[in-house]
Amino acid sequence: MSESLNIAVIPGDGIGPEVIAEAVKVLQVVTVNTGVNLKLTNYKLGAEHWLETGETLPEETLTALRSHDAILFGAVGAAPGDTRIPSGLIEREMLLKLRFSLDHFVNLRPSKLYPGVPSPLANPGEIDFIVVREGTEGPYVGNGGVLRAGTPHEIATEVSINTAHGVERVVRDAFRRANDRPRKHLTLVHKHNVLVFAGHLWRRAVEAIAPEFPEVTHDYLHVDAATIFMTTNPSRFDVIVTDNLFGDILTDQAGAITGGIGLAASGNINMDRTAPSMFEPVHGSAPDIAGQQKADPTAAILSTALLLDHVGLPELARRVEAAVEGDVASRDEMTDPRTTSEIGDAIIAALA
Amino acid sequence: MSESLNIAVIPGDGIGPEVIAEAVKVLQVVTVNTGVNLKLTNYKLGAEHWLETGETLPEETLTALRSHDAILFGAVGAAPGDTRIPSGLIEREMLLKLRFSLDHFVNLRPSKLYPGVPSPLANPGEIDFIVVREGTEGPYVGNGGVLRAGTPHEIATEVSINTAHGVERVVRDAFRRANDRPRKHLTLVHKHNVLVFAGHLWRRAVEAIAPEFPEVTHDYLHVDAATIFMTTNPSRFDVIVTDNLFGDILTDQAGAITGGIGLAASGNINMDRTAPSMFEPVHGSAPDIAGQQKADPTAAILSTALLLDHVGLPELARRVEAAVEGDVASRDEMTDPRTTSEIGDAIIAALA
Ligand SMILES: CC(C)[C@H](C(=O)O)[C@@H](O)C(=O)O
Ligand SMILES: CC(C)[C@H](C(=O)O)[C@@H](O)C(=O)O
Repeated sequence: MSESLNIAVIPGDGIGPEVIAEAVKVLQVVTVNTGVNLKLTNYKLGAEHWLETGETLPEETLTALRSHDAILFGAVGAAPGDTRIPSGLIEREMLLKLRFSLDHFVNLRPSKLYPGVPSPLANPGEIDFIVVREGTEGPYVGNGGVLRAGTPHEIATEVSINTAHGVERVVRDAFRRANDRPRKHLTLVHKHNVLVFAGHLWRRAVEAIAPEFPEVTHDYLHVDAATIFMTTNPSRFDVIVTDNLFGDILTDQAGAITGGIGLAASGNINMDRTAPSMFEPVHGSAPDIAGQQKADPTAAILSTALLLDHVGLPELARRVEAAVEGDVASRDEMTDPRTTSEIGDAIIAALA
Repeated sequence: MSESLNIAVIPGDGIGPEVIAEAVKVLQVVTVNTGVNLKLTNYKLGAEHWLETGETLPEETLTALRSHDAILFGAVGAAPGDTRIPSGLIEREMLLKLRFSLDHFVNLRPSKLYPGVPSPLANPGEIDFIVVREGTEGPYVGNGGVLRAGTPHEIATEVSINTAHGVERVVRDAFRRANDRPRKHLTLVHKHNVLVFAGHLWRRAVEAIAPEFPEVTHDYLHVDAATIFMTTNPSRFDVIVTDNLFGDILTDQAGAITGGIGLAASGNINMDRTAPSMFEPVHGSAPDIAGQQKADPTAAILSTALLLDHVGLPELARRVEAAVEGDVASRDEMTDPRTTSEIGDAIIAALA
């Protein structure tokens, strides 16, 4: 029996190509002799590509990407000081455009403190939660504008758009994931005492969907309080569901407390499977260390595990995770002298 | 010589009255024999008051509050389970209404890890920064709405409003505060790669005002990255300037890393002095421990130091801070068995 797995690869900018090279090797090795026929197609996109061509995400590329089973993505973004590239252009016109066009409504970000990995917290306890971040609406919609720009009377607005459709589907997904986990607990994070209109939509969605999952308990935290618990008692979290912006903030904090965003994987998932999902490390393109083999490819490699789960190959996903877990347990984080590809090779050796 | 200091006191709900009682004692003691003629007027406002009268913040009360030199505020908010009070009503119609009506555009929140206070971070380093949070606009303006409420086609919006007037005045205030500090460094926190319109207004304000303060260096962080540095290297911060919502989130996190929001003070300051400023602990009303003398009054007491600074009595402010510093250094946080008023009394003893 042989099934084909047709993956689009977008290495992107900065450390993206380096970490994706390792993730690709892992995908190749883990699928050997499994009957999975892995096909990889590279797409050049990102800040570098924009400088060369003026293209962010051409329609033909978007159409071509749609034909794949999944997308593996590195990172995009120019160096902060690079004034040739309008700030945020690539992030919005390419990365966010992919998430929105391909309806990646579940932005899945697991946070786990692996044995042997030091946390910056004095008493981290056991950390093992997932954040289900809404990926297609909220303050990320790009609605807003400027009036009287550049004058003393300038007014700039940003509009957060939240729909019953968008909120309910991600809340249901989060309940489903909570139901599949041993602790079966869901925490809604928002700021409904201030953002009344959006906040109440989120709360009502949780209350409306909760009866479908009678075994799942749920609670609520304001986003400010959530950052406190993330610091003082992260073990309290099992599944967090939250909006696009709060999810962005909390998952960087979650990455920090679990040993750094060098380990944080993510999936931009279209659970309706009307378009391919996209898997990427949470970290950015880190132009300051690009091309030096200094980046940790672990987050990119763990993102392939999320990819394998999504395409229905959970045994392979568990093998990747186990190999990573073995490698990180043996690291001395302070003095790990290994290059990006040495770390990749070590994880591959553990896979075999 | 005698000058009068005419303070409005709003104890509020939950632990508010307990912690404010201690803060008031501190104000009374620190002003003794200083020629300051302290006059205190109590105002009953908050969730309890709403249950009794249906009033949130009557016009007459607002007018009366305007006649004071400053306001000392405890905390408001009903117990989370109390369904008699519409969620967030008191927070919005009273607390936020005060901040907006009295034009408290500088929401000042210092974060300092006092010697002897344990941080939840493994290697906190020296933490001594202030957050200048914008207090009168951003996503807090209450603009937004709901269409097709309760139907599958519901749409809820939240509008963040940012003005050149509002942003420039708070950025200038933050630069001024940075200029007065030894390290003279300002960090703008925003998310301009996604929130383009508001983000660019903030960035342009910083660039426009920077030349007025040639000794102050400045940098920029996205809010998600700021939560990482807050965890891994909080010493990098000196003065942070940010919008209303990001400031809300970051200052709770900042409270957590400096030993808990039991120590975090804040000032809602009208720097133009067209209305009285208001000083309050960052923490909430904590209904679960209310009335049990379990609350730590330190944040409320440190808020009186900010108040004394604002009304032009910095020597008294330093005395309050020194007394607090002495007390916290001698605490065993894990086993501190003291009641709210015992802590207050100890700080007062140190003042004498
Ligand atoms: C690069 C940026 C647009 C992106 C986001 O804000 O979602 C990033 O921070 C992330 O979390 O994936
Ligand atoms: C109670 C609430 C409205 C308030 C805020 O969000 O500003 C509080 O969290 C704070 O930080 O003072």
